[in-house]
Amino acid sequence: MKTWQKLSSKKGRQASGSYLLDGWHLVEEAIQHHGHLHALIGTSEQLKLHATELPTGVPVFEITPEIAKKLSDLVTPQGIFAEVSLPKANRAPQFIHEGAWLFLDGIQDPGNVGTMVRTADAAGFAGVVFGQGSVDPYSPKATRAMQGSQFHIELASGDLLTWTAAFKENGINVYGTELNPAAVDLFTVNPEPAFALIMGNEGQGMQPALSAAASQNLYIPLVGEAESLNVAVAAGIAMFALTQG
Amino acid sequence: MKTWQKLSSKKGRQASGSYLLDGWHLVEEAIQHHGHLHALIGTSEQLKLHATELPTGVPVFEITPEIAKKLSDLVTPQGIFAEVSLPKANRAPQFIHEGAWLFLDGIQDPGNVGTMVRTADAAGFAGVVFGQGSVDPYSPKATRAMQGSQFHIELASGDLLTWTAAFKENGINVYGTELNPAAVDLFTVNPEPAFALIMGNEGQGMQPALSAAASQNLYIPLVGEAESLNVAVAAGIAMFALTQG
Repeated sequence: MKTWQKLSSKKGRQASGSYLLDGWHLVEEAIQHHGHLHALIGTSEQLKLHATELPTGVPVFEITPEIAKKLSDLVTPQGIFAEVSLPKANRAPQFIHEGAWLFLDGIQDPGNVGTMVRTADAAGFAGVVFGQGSVDPYSPKATRAMQGSQFHIELASGDLLTWTAAFKENGINVYGTELNPAAVDLFTVNPEPAFALIMGNEGQGMQPALSAAASQNLYIPLVGEAESLNVAVAAGIAMFALTQG
Repeated sequence: MKTWQKLSSKKGRQASGSYLLDGWHLVEEAIQHHGHLHALIGTSEQLKLHATELPTGVPVFEITPEIAKKLSDLVTPQGIFAEVSLPKANRAPQFIHEGAWLFLDGIQDPGNVGTMVRTADAAGFAGVVFGQGSVDPYSPKATRAMQGSQFHIELASGDLLTWTAAFKENGINVYGTELNPAAVDLFTVNPEPAFALIMGNEGQGMQPALSAAASQNLYIPLVGEAESLNVAVAAGIAMFALTQG
């Protein structure tokens, strides 16, 4: 129990190489997409309810509703969890030649990170790369917002200047995003099937070195008096505009 | 103090006809856009810091940092608040002949509601209409996500079937949104300058009667394995695609 509780912190997740999924929808995604399951953990009620859907060969632990409340950050948890492996080391960017990629530069809010992974999946992106300074994507709040999309697309981490240089070396355009109307209106861009889109920190935007390294910087034209967009909304608008628009 | 604390509930806000803004950015938006201010409330530090920016003729109340913590739902509030009037009764829809409008049908999450108002502002929408069953937009969490956009565009509430009928009567198309690929791909639609876009409940979507009443139902084509989008992200994609796409 203590061990599972530790998975609520990044330190605990890195020590065990695993993270916790909270609720049947996420557990089911892990099962269906062959996530590497260490343990299934549930109240007797939840384990009975899903008895026929649980995979064989994975240790099952029954917990009380009180312990379920301790494991969850929700006020009323469903009472079913899975402990799954963190992904292994990711591909090096120089081996990537296709697909649309989202680069996250210093995104701080776990809900925003999770929502962006979910949206990247829905937009048909190949993967999401977490730069140094972005929040850990395996917290309960982030994985809840992901809705299982981490099992559908590739999640990687690394230095975004290195990733940007490698993509450009491979002939793949890397688009930064800024609030600056001196940048290019993203609704006028028709990218190739392979490209990367960078979203920057909620308050500060992209780090200047990354902005300078981008093939081109784009902006979303704002019409009203709002000064900016929520970063997850901006990412959604940009990802769909660049792939469907 | 007790009175201000009551503004954290919808009941308290309706009783007083006012709501509370938390933090200087929101207070400043209210001042600049001539929101009807009942009171400015701050710690001595915050009141000194913004002394030259506070409007005359509005009662100012000094509070301790402990009381600031009680008034705020944030862990570390800035310590400055404004009590402002709820908007007056809104225009009847039959008098509306222009602009893009967002209709919210049963949106439950205050953060989603606030983010959608902020995004509607940024997309140049004229207003947002809250249908019956949508969460109250004047909670602290919702107004924080709005970032002051309630002072830039019109917020209205009413029965969305009535609004839809009135808009159609005025020759304005009302677009529903669904996950159903039998609906029309929204990236193929080029609306007139005046239209309404309906977003439905996070889990259930639009109420069927409203879907049936819409001029047309649109969907956002999802490419990956994600089953849906966060509703605030979907609204952002749709609003920008219909105005900029």
